[in-house]
Amino acid sequence: MDRVVIALGGNALLQKGDEDSAQSMRRSARVAAEMLADVAERGWEVVVTHGNGPQVGRILLQNEEAARLVAPMPLDVCGAESQGQIGYLLQVAVGDVFYERGMDRPVATVLTLTRVPPDDPAFQEPTKPIGPYYGKEKAKRLVRERGYRVAPAPGDAGWRRVVPSPRPYSIVEAPVIRQLVSSGVIVIAAGGGGVPVVEEGPRLVGVEAVVDKDLAAAILAKDVEADALLILTDVEGVYENFGTPEQLLLPQLTPEEARRRVEAGEFGTGSMRPKVEAAAEFVEGGGKAAIIAALREGPRALAGQAGTRIAY
Amino acid sequence: MDRVVIALGGNALLQKGDEDSAQSMRRSARVAAEMLADVAERGWEVVVTHGNGPQVGRILLQNEEAARLVAPMPLDVCGAESQGQIGYLLQVAVGDVFYERGMDRPVATVLTLTRVPPDDPAFQEPTKPIGPYYGKEKAKRLVRERGYRVAPAPGDAGWRRVVPSPRPYSIVEAPVIRQLVSSGVIVIAAGGGGVPVVEEGPRLVGVEAVVDKDLAAAILAKDVEADALLILTDVEGVYENFGTPEQLLLPQLTPEEARRRVEAGEFGTGSMRPKVEAAAEFVEGGGKAAIIAALREGPRALAGQAGTRIAY
Repeated sequence: MDRVVIALGGNALLQKGDEDSAQSMRRSARVAAEMLADVAERGWEVVVTHGNGPQVGRILLQNEEAARLVAPMPLDVCGAESQGQIGYLLQVAVGDVFYERGMDRPVATVLTLTRVPPDDPAFQEPTKPIGPYYGKEKAKRLVRERGYRVAPAPGDAGWRRVVPSPRPYSIVEAPVIRQLVSSGVIVIAAGGGGVPVVEEGPRLVGVEAVVDKDLAAAILAKDVEADALLILTDVEGVYENFGTPEQLLLPQLTPEEARRRVEAGEFGTGSMRPKVEAAAEFVEGGGKAAIIAALREGPRALAGQAGTRIAY
Repeated sequence: MDRVVIALGGNALLQKGDEDSAQSMRRSARVAAEMLADVAERGWEVVVTHGNGPQVGRILLQNEEAARLVAPMPLDVCGAESQGQIGYLLQVAVGDVFYERGMDRPVATVLTLTRVPPDDPAFQEPTKPIGPYYGKEKAKRLVRERGYRVAPAPGDAGWRRVVPSPRPYSIVEAPVIRQLVSSGVIVIAAGGGGVPVVEEGPRLVGVEAVVDKDLAAAILAKDVEADALLILTDVEGVYENFGTPEQLLLPQLTPEEARRRVEAGEFGTGSMRPKVEAAAEFVEGGGKAAIIAALREGPRALAGQAGTRIAY
């Protein structure tokens, strides 16, 4: 049986403009679950990863707002909480769809830690904005009292905490995830890219950072020996001249061509760039193919009928 | 290899008087992890469950405090978040101790749902207090606006939300947990008793309730075919005349005797009663032995040298 790691973008998982209530998350999870069931029905072994940007942002905001009553949890712990939250809602939705279709495939959510190098240059230069917007005085106080790094948000929107986004190199729970997916379990794992940990001697120590979820998905796909990596988002695939009248969907790219376009700055620093990098990385590391496509096109993209396929 | 399900009480996991910061949770997790490594070293396959009372209470409080900015999550979702939070801290601590001792056993946290009957009488009569204390006016408003049930707290301490505590009958992820523990993985599961779900036709629907974690551990122990259920708490075992000068530790009880003492009201309605019921239930259902003991006595209790053993 062929094995796929499917990465659901925050944008693919949450409908745009939707507020982040449990109800709206359940609706979005349902849409993703139908697509996942379509893929599983075609005989794929499936590992699902997902973003957690909006959700962990809201958990951080809850931590801030209640700080006078409850000791705020550090970012790594909040990330673990978001894996529980999103994994639960997604798992229930997938289970529902499977039952309705008479499919007998267990679903499980595995809390996931992702190893990052302690000397990653990102630790010197945190750039990833997370959580609430603050006024200047509050921002200064958080720097003083909690050691936050902060940066001004674009357009005078206030200040935000920034954290490092180091590159992941391995998934701690990969052996467990591989064992489960090999036996037919649909595994939800590496939510939000996984909780980033560094190795300090024999210890794994959680760090206040954010791992890019597409790069984590590429590492996970390699570690569980997946045949394909499917990165789903809210556009049809990788475009040339995206956002102009000349925009053109690229149906196929080699890893070299993908890297060349990244180097040439074709994807800016927006959300498409790490997707293309993750896809190239997976194929360079021995994966058969990575596909970037729109959420609803998941099954067709795997069949080579939609999206952008990165392969040799 | 013999298999044990170990239930860590909230009191066993959190040192008394300790505030619930990440740091203090890490310290408590470390103590539990040393004990779990002692048990694993003696050749046991181990599934660990844990309470979540203080932690989910604090997550609920964070949800309340931030309600004007972030839509509060329902209790089932908060419970899933607490499984991520506690599972992460416990798993890292167990992994650390294993590495230090040169033990090569993977550790994984599996998000867990627990089935409860939709017609459980507890749904008519919610009794379990959770989360923050409210003034009377705020309590009234939450009843009106969010449909909470509330009850006065003892000693004029204010009002608290009360939720049902239905009896669990099966663990949704038991097959996955059994598979992992059979292959030597230390599995952390059914945290806080698992997220309670009811079956509505083919669907599993999360409910705002709290499953007793010891009863859930008994069901989990049966479902994963454990040889022993070890319930760890902050006292040495089951006492006769507890808290009086005549108190006497009972080294051994049959399930019948245990039930008889429960019926006679010997354990009040405090935290020992569900432990004794859970122990009796596991043994009546075919388990070899259940042991109730103090956290640090875990390995000795399993060897029959400490605690109260419930067996035929």
